[in-house]
Amino acid sequence: MVIGAGFGGIEAAKALRRAPVDVTLIDRQNHHCFQPLLYQVATAALSPADIAWPIRHILRGQDNVTVLLAEVVGVDVARRRVLLSGAEPIAYDHLVVATGSMHSYFGHDEWAEFAPGLKRIVDATRIRRSILLGFERAEMQHDKAEQQRLLTFVIVGGGATGVEMAGAIAEIARLTLAKDFRRIDPRSARIVLLEAGPRILPTLSPDLSDYALRALTRMGAEVRTSTRVTACDRGGVDLDGGRIDAGTVIWAAGVQASPAARWLGAKADRAGRVVVGPDLSLPGHPEIFVIGDTASAIDAAGHRAPGIAPAAKQMGRYVGKLIRARLEGRSRPPFRYWHAGELATIGRRSAVVQFHRIHLTGFVGWLFWGLAHIYFLIGTRNRFVVAFIWLWDFVTFQRGARLITDVPPQQKS
Amino acid sequence: MVIGAGFGGIEAAKALRRAPVDVTLIDRQNHHCFQPLLYQVATAALSPADIAWPIRHILRGQDNVTVLLAEVVGVDVARRRVLLSGAEPIAYDHLVVATGSMHSYFGHDEWAEFAPGLKRIVDATRIRRSILLGFERAEMQHDKAEQQRLLTFVIVGGGATGVEMAGAIAEIARLTLAKDFRRIDPRSARIVLLEAGPRILPTLSPDLSDYALRALTRMGAEVRTSTRVTACDRGGVDLDGGRIDAGTVIWAAGVQASPAARWLGAKADRAGRVVVGPDLSLPGHPEIFVIGDTASAIDAAGHRAPGIAPAAKQMGRYVGKLIRARLEGRSRPPFRYWHAGELATIGRRSAVVQFHRIHLTGFVGWLFWGLAHIYFLIGTRNRFVVAFIWLWDFVTFQRGARLITDVPPQQKS
Repeated sequence: MVIGAGFGGIEAAKALRRAPVDVTLIDRQNHHCFQPLLYQVATAALSPADIAWPIRHILRGQDNVTVLLAEVVGVDVARRRVLLSGAEPIAYDHLVVATGSMHSYFGHDEWAEFAPGLKRIVDATRIRRSILLGFERAEMQHDKAEQQRLLTFVIVGGGATGVEMAGAIAEIARLTLAKDFRRIDPRSARIVLLEAGPRILPTLSPDLSDYALRALTRMGAEVRTSTRVTACDRGGVDLDGGRIDAGTVIWAAGVQASPAARWLGAKADRAGRVVVGPDLSLPGHPEIFVIGDTASAIDAAGHRAPGIAPAAKQMGRYVGKLIRARLEGRSRPPFRYWHAGELATIGRRSAVVQFHRIHLTGFVGWLFWGLAHIYFLIGTRNRFVVAFIWLWDFVTFQRGARLITDVPPQQKS
Repeated sequence: MVIGAGFGGIEAAKALRRAPVDVTLIDRQNHHCFQPLLYQVATAALSPADIAWPIRHILRGQDNVTVLLAEVVGVDVARRRVLLSGAEPIAYDHLVVATGSMHSYFGHDEWAEFAPGLKRIVDATRIRRSILLGFERAEMQHDKAEQQRLLTFVIVGGGATGVEMAGAIAEIARLTLAKDFRRIDPRSARIVLLEAGPRILPTLSPDLSDYALRALTRMGAEVRTSTRVTACDRGGVDLDGGRIDAGTVIWAAGVQASPAARWLGAKADRAGRVVVGPDLSLPGHPEIFVIGDTASAIDAAGHRAPGIAPAAKQMGRYVGKLIRARLEGRSRPPFRYWHAGELATIGRRSAVVQFHRIHLTGFVGWLFWGLAHIYFLIGTRNRFVVAFIWLWDFVTFQRGARLITDVPPQQKS
């Protein structure tokens, strides 16, 4: 049984295609979401359906897979059963836990209300609404200070998601909306990217961090490194030196693992990830595997597998093959992570790519980034649609999904 | 000032392009929705952004228009001011009310909870969720009777929307989902279209009603005419003869006008529409016009303008030109409605079209329907995307927007 249909869970199920097993794949959503492009939904470039696909459709050709839409609430490790909300428990022989991660507010969960993170489709449409409503409310506002606050967007965390969000919001303000308002000038919007460490994109090399910093600054975003957020509230954020009044705050900082460690009664690291052995199984439970963002794994070469999509896919594939090998009486070497590289886009004609020793920036990096993401999307239809929309938006400077669709509570009928 | 950015309101604003006026266009949504294709969002074929466009983007090239996202709560006719929720009133010289219509449950508003109607984007995503969850829950269900109930879909109302919904759900069950489930057979789903009158599509000619009835039956939908719903509840619907247990009930029956008549203190007909004069103005108030679904208008030839998009557009254009003429000291003849025809799609290769004396059905009707709708969509980008998606879905028998995105209340974090 596989819990979670993210990159790791889907790959594990696929790797069991020819194994003599019945695979049950459980997720609380009906769709697999291509998280690397979630920020494009949050910034009105793509529609949710362009980067998501029904799980059961992805696996419909694989007869030994049953997909269930259900919420897991625990695991009975002793009796080998997965406990569901509102349904009977399900027994397993092998269990693969691939439940991903959530945002961490460093012990301040009350900030989540004011500074939403970006993990699911609903998060993306919520953030999209907040960004677009910022401009709409500023147009309706007569008080100048409040108008400026509504036009201030703070992104907390200078990793890939933070950089991509800051660049995209800067483009919305400077290009997309430039001619659409009469009382405000959207180009006067203030976009601030906050990073607690000394440089943005800390997992890439310093020259790429520098490039990203310069590119964002040129696009009109403010980047503040070595700046820590000490509080979030409805009106903005407090910093270790000062305060920023803001209408929209987006959280792209810490990550913590899903509650899998608690379900399993297993040892977890500081980020809540389950510590697994060299074959990604839970120590003392060779029938339970933990993969992806939920696992704290050191591979055969002594490298820690990072919390990114390629690592999750490799772990999923490894575990699927290992289970099949076991059932066929074969053995497999320990897990070995292959690091291809990392990349982040900043805006039109601008991205950073670190692929082994090759570093790309600017237009070439941006082309590489775009082609790589289209290649990894699921489904030919979505590849065509996304490629067309990107081309169209590039030529027209537009974003086609500028919808405020969640009805605010006071308007609900 | 124009209230409402549907087909009528947008046309009125556009017709005032060269008039010496400042136009304020108010809507409580940020987007104009192409309602004729809303059922395709509800049935997972298109994404919301494919049929909606930001209002301020549509009119960004027209310098004399200011678009405001705000909710109108009333009109102070004596002082010529529009009252907003949470903002200062706005004064007007001329007022165009184009606030559309809502669903009517014939005095049983409590049915709305169990049988949602289809008017806005949020309605469409709600219905999409309900349809897709029906199949998902049936897959999780062990009780056979409950499983069959979850797989029963009732559509109330045999007009164009009801026929289109019934045909689309039949296709989802028979074609799209055919291979995606393991425990249930989606093809066993029951789709029932209920119509209180003696035939479906009552505004078209009887031969086209007959064709639609046969086409729906061939696709596996049940059509019951002369059947009235007497109650809706969580488990299904009561009829004047019998009961249908159903997991999803969709309301496509009565329509009532928005509360504009109450705002204006004006005379309304039985459906709540404001009775207007031959120039679409409110009797006694030449400065106030009511158009589209909100108006009860008899044109110069004695014909009643129906509640469809072309009528709303013609009224909007007429009023815009009339206001301009008045300001320039010219007069205009009374409003005259030109009826082009009506059309409805039923499924793959099947539609009915009544265009003056020309009646089209089958593949030719379906092609005409598709081309007409792409032509009337707003924006070249959406035309391309929708055309591509239709072509793709036609070839693959798929629907690309099968997302359950609204988190059910019990799962909300």
